[in-house]
Amino acid sequence: MRLGIDVGGTKTAAVILDDNDAVVAELIRPTGYGRDEVLASVVESSVELAGRVGITADRFDSIGIGIPGAVNSATGRVEHAVNLGLDGFELGTEAAAQLGTRVAVENDVNAAAVGAYRYVSSTGSDTALGTDGLAYLNLGTGLAAGIVLDGHLRRGSSGVAGEIGHIPVDATGVICSCGQRGCLETIASGSAIARQWPTTGTSPVHDMMAAAAAGDPVAGRIRALLFEGVATAVRILTLSVDVRTVVLGGGVTSLGEPLLSGVNEVLDGWAESSPFLASLRLGERIRVIPKNHPVAAVGAALIGVP
Amino acid sequence: MRLGIDVGGTKTAAVILDDNDAVVAELIRPTGYGRDEVLASVVESSVELAGRVGITADRFDSIGIGIPGAVNSATGRVEHAVNLGLDGFELGTEAAAQLGTRVAVENDVNAAAVGAYRYVSSTGSDTALGTDGLAYLNLGTGLAAGIVLDGHLRRGSSGVAGEIGHIPVDATGVICSCGQRGCLETIASGSAIARQWPTTGTSPVHDMMAAAAAGDPVAGRIRALLFEGVATAVRILTLSVDVRTVVLGGGVTSLGEPLLSGVNEVLDGWAESSPFLASLRLGERIRVIPKNHPVAAVGAALIGVP
Repeated sequence: MRLGIDVGGTKTAAVILDDNDAVVAELIRPTGYGRDEVLASVVESSVELAGRVGITADRFDSIGIGIPGAVNSATGRVEHAVNLGLDGFELGTEAAAQLGTRVAVENDVNAAAVGAYRYVSSTGSDTALGTDGLAYLNLGTGLAAGIVLDGHLRRGSSGVAGEIGHIPVDATGVICSCGQRGCLETIASGSAIARQWPTTGTSPVHDMMAAAAAGDPVAGRIRALLFEGVATAVRILTLSVDVRTVVLGGGVTSLGEPLLSGVNEVLDGWAESSPFLASLRLGERIRVIPKNHPVAAVGAALIGVP
Repeated sequence: MRLGIDVGGTKTAAVILDDNDAVVAELIRPTGYGRDEVLASVVESSVELAGRVGITADRFDSIGIGIPGAVNSATGRVEHAVNLGLDGFELGTEAAAQLGTRVAVENDVNAAAVGAYRYVSSTGSDTALGTDGLAYLNLGTGLAAGIVLDGHLRRGSSGVAGEIGHIPVDATGVICSCGQRGCLETIASGSAIARQWPTTGTSPVHDMMAAAAAGDPVAGRIRALLFEGVATAVRILTLSVDVRTVVLGGGVTSLGEPLLSGVNEVLDGWAESSPFLASLRLGERIRVIPKNHPVAAVGAALIGVP
């Protein structure tokens, strides 16, 4: 059995996969902030899930962790994970010491890409998935993709493969946290919407969509940028790596059908003016993982395989 | 011995590689226009080079052709090659019938990417070239890249991997031949410069550069767009597939040092305002193939391997 842990900014999700990669146990708990609390989230999740299936944590065939931030997957070191208060933390080594077995660590979007690949494989809908490739496009606080080609995660020569959120798309846009102007992430991400549509409610994304639906012109403009930005991400992923499947995930996808239909409307408009783009059938590449499917935790479990 | 043929819009270059992939014979001849002339260019080049090494063409271990256009590499069919007057031409089958052996056909930029990969490998400068990956960025009439990952050409699920020239980068730009507005190709390619700087001379690119160097403000603006466009291509290739090496090729690179230093100036400017981009060392990824190295023909020879 394999254990996968998705350490999120607020919640940690953990799953156990059986030998057929099916989820046989699952839990969600708060993450906490800083080294000690993040490590405790990982260790306590592992021990609790192990207990549920009647083993100790050192008996898992593999353990993998997905975490939002810059990770050295070769060493298990978290270089930076700003939202979790981590900076140069040897998460893999520390967790392994407490759990008594090797622990792999990976960026959470990359982990989710592996989980998404497993999910799409299991549906059998794309028989050439290996060679065609898949991208998992995360629309969370930021925008980033994880890319799986020939059945393997592509991290890239400096670990930034799929970081398309930092491709500038608007020369008149705002300065991004990366220092560039008008990055894709500044128009199509949770943080982009929170910046443009500050709210006292719990979700700027849902608030903005409700206001746009009610006819608010400012919200309508923000919504249009979001749809266009997601469509742009799909176009960039196609014209660079040409993956056949782009799986959408992350908090913004909780918008569901209105997001998908908005993005498809943009793509249809593009196809009308460009026979070339039309031939690429961008809309048909988009998939959405079912709500509550723990794709990043599943991917973390699979990445843990030695 | 392997034979590789690069069928260009005006010239056809052919090489023979020995068992160590070294070029042992080489020729250049005019291509001609239309099915019969293109096929004759291929057959006559093959027969002549075979004669030079004392064999008949059917004795080559493999024959491969690179050609500018949309190619079905599985069948050897050229779907479209506008500049050569080809439309739905079974080049692989026809050439094989005349030469008495199997003939592989590939898009010329993809072939050049394989040749560039071989070239960079042979210099031994990047010891992790396989996993780091390489892109060949062709600055010819158009702008497109060929991508080699894990030692293999990535064609993509619909054959458009590396077609970054059709990523729009200027919302106020001109309409591209693909139907979109402001594609990268409309600012950084031979055709982009010819459109913006029409000339009675033989080379709009060199004329424009000379005028810019002499202080012409319009030429200066076109030059700035060219430099920024090439830098943008390198950024896109890094933030999507994160290849460690981007090899520049194609007619526009005949500008040599002024092009390279102009692109590097743009990249340095970006690095100053973005620590993230600075950390990616984009300028250090750029390589140029020595002038007159027949990279596409060499790649075609290597692609011909069954």
